[in-house]
Amino acid sequence: MNRLSLNQWTTRRWSLPEAADGCARHGLQAIGVWREQLAECGLAAGVRAVRAAGLRVSSLCRGGFLTAGGALDDNRRAIDEAAELDAACLVLVVGGLPGVPPGAPPPAAFSRDLPGARARVAEALAALVPYAAERGVRLALEPLHPMYCADRAVLSTLGQALDLAGHHPADRVGVVVDAFHVWWDPALPAQLTRAGASGRLASYQVSDWPQPLPPDVLLGRAMMGDGVIDLPALTAAVLAAGYTGDIEVEIFNAEVWSADPDEVLTTMKRRYREMLAGQA
Amino acid sequence: MNRLSLNQWTTRRWSLPEAADGCARHGLQAIGVWREQLAECGLAAGVRAVRAAGLRVSSLCRGGFLTAGGALDDNRRAIDEAAELDAACLVLVVGGLPGVPPGAPPPAAFSRDLPGARARVAEALAALVPYAAERGVRLALEPLHPMYCADRAVLSTLGQALDLAGHHPADRVGVVVDAFHVWWDPALPAQLTRAGASGRLASYQVSDWPQPLPPDVLLGRAMMGDGVIDLPALTAAVLAAGYTGDIEVEIFNAEVWSADPDEVLTTMKRRYREMLAGQA
Repeated sequence: MNRLSLNQWTTRRWSLPEAADGCARHGLQAIGVWREQLAECGLAAGVRAVRAAGLRVSSLCRGGFLTAGGALDDNRRAIDEAAELDAACLVLVVGGLPGVPPGAPPPAAFSRDLPGARARVAEALAALVPYAAERGVRLALEPLHPMYCADRAVLSTLGQALDLAGHHPADRVGVVVDAFHVWWDPALPAQLTRAGASGRLASYQVSDWPQPLPPDVLLGRAMMGDGVIDLPALTAAVLAAGYTGDIEVEIFNAEVWSADPDEVLTTMKRRYREMLAGQA
Repeated sequence: MNRLSLNQWTTRRWSLPEAADGCARHGLQAIGVWREQLAECGLAAGVRAVRAAGLRVSSLCRGGFLTAGGALDDNRRAIDEAAELDAACLVLVVGGLPGVPPGAPPPAAFSRDLPGARARVAEALAALVPYAAERGVRLALEPLHPMYCADRAVLSTLGQALDLAGHHPADRVGVVVDAFHVWWDPALPAQLTRAGASGRLASYQVSDWPQPLPPDVLLGRAMMGDGVIDLPALTAAVLAAGYTGDIEVEIFNAEVWSADPDEVLTTMKRRYREMLAGQA
């Protein structure tokens, strides 16, 4: 239980101070912070709330969208925030095809050049790494499920994320393993081993794959145990690969969001225990 | 234009004789046949209709669902049908997790054992290959988009399909490259080259990825040019890898299905020409 972290998006109606209090009340030691709620309460107040609750910040979510204009400035601000929070990493969702807005129809002009978008991500990452290194912030590349390739992340597999991270030192650029995004990947066992051996495992996030997906696929993430992923086996593989950080529960789900956050945390703790039952 | 094939599901309200007539009327030389419509008109009548229209059968769709009970018997019937039609291949959609129904919530009891499901697919394939070989039918493994992993295909990438096919002779087991399913894959260029070099390219199907996806993700396939895939580049890569067969247009889309099929074919031919413009 000492490695369980609440990713704030799971209880997104809570402000950051409310979420920090909630974590403390439920005996959690870590929180994954979102920049939206951090902006709402202000950086200084957010840092104070997290410190007062005695929490580690397992991640700051999120920087990225590196294929869009103005991305570097916004990511430098995110790096500054991660440094102030002493976050274990800044999660980067790298962005989709240039000009394609998340979850909406593209305008008349957009780019279909997927290799070009991937090259742009690599360039922007290279531009950010020195800035992050100076501030002691580790960037964490998050491969997203391939169904988000067009609008959210042209980074779609753990192997691809490791290839990209490999151009930089492991303590500066790691990867995020999010169960929902990668569970289907036939190369996952081998890539988890590779990620662990190269010291790149920066974050592990869990939620479940509901079957069938809801109409808005962005909200298609279930509480652990409510979907089809073999989360005990996946978690065992991540731990066996050498992951030593916190385990964040990040759930995008309209029903979870409308529920009482305290009840969500109670359920989350029970399901987390079940997921880890029998593990070392 | 002589390589353009109408996959019957694109004009699914047409019976097989109607679709065969439609292809002939529009100057097409090939058709991808679906077993549902074949069953409706009967095998003998279906074969006559296709022959009378002077069409090649670029594929029979589809066998598979190898993780379900009774799969082998049904697939042997599909092989028999493919032999009668002289189809270039029998497309196999291999099936999802055992007990998870396509597009519906799973019952209380189902399997989360993804490696086990993949092993079951490999075993069933091995059992079918000799039967198909005796009848001169080539099986074609279709990797489906990872968002269908739970309920339709635990085969999710071209590389995985080639690994599986590699246990059998290339003239007996090939792979399907469906643009909608594989366009996002960072390993696609390398795997296309591998597929071509090993003589495994059995079918190429095209449609486009709409942005955003519709509420029912099964129907999320657009007419070429209406989505975000760089189809000219992908098609060039498939042809450069050595694919010499027909190019099937297969569109699952409620609007396309409700349109006049003759108009769909007219649009399809124009978009196909645009897709191939500038290619050798």
